[in-house]
Amino acid sequence: MDQSSLKTLGHRIRERRKTLGWTQETLADTAKIDRSYIGSVERGERNLTFTVLCQICMALSCDVAALTADLPEPPR
Amino acid sequence: MDQSSLKTLGHRIRERRKTLGWTQETLADTAKIDRSYIGSVERGERNLTFTVLCQICMALSCDVAALTADLPEPPR
Repeated sequence: MDQSSLKTLGHRIRERRKTLGWTQETLADTAKIDRSYIGSVERGERNLTFTVLCQICMALSCDVAALTADLPEPPR
Repeated sequence: MDQSSLKTLGHRIRERRKTLGWTQETLADTAKIDRSYIGSVERGERNLTFTVLCQICMALSCDVAALTADLPEPPR
């Protein structure tokens, strides 16, 4: 499990959401995903599927590439 | 399910693998993923998780962003 890449991805999703001035609730409603699920994704606790990542990006009006530069992180 | 984005992703993974001159077997061995699983990912039949996508990208020496520009595709 590449836990640090999940954490970085979750952090970037949160940053992007906040840039839009959205609550987790707004993102959850727009992406049609449960709010508690969004919370766990943002904390990097959820190994989300590609289609869920696509749903989130669609809601955030960005492509997946906008959130995944330099991921996976090289092993330390 | 964003099936067309999965197909595009799979196609890009295949292209990147072929650019390296690799068989599915080589990619499977390097990424430590079953060969038949790689086949289904390349055909867009598998809704892979983010960590599996990271394993594949690590094997292909690229970041996730290199394979995910303009994904998800806008609905037609």
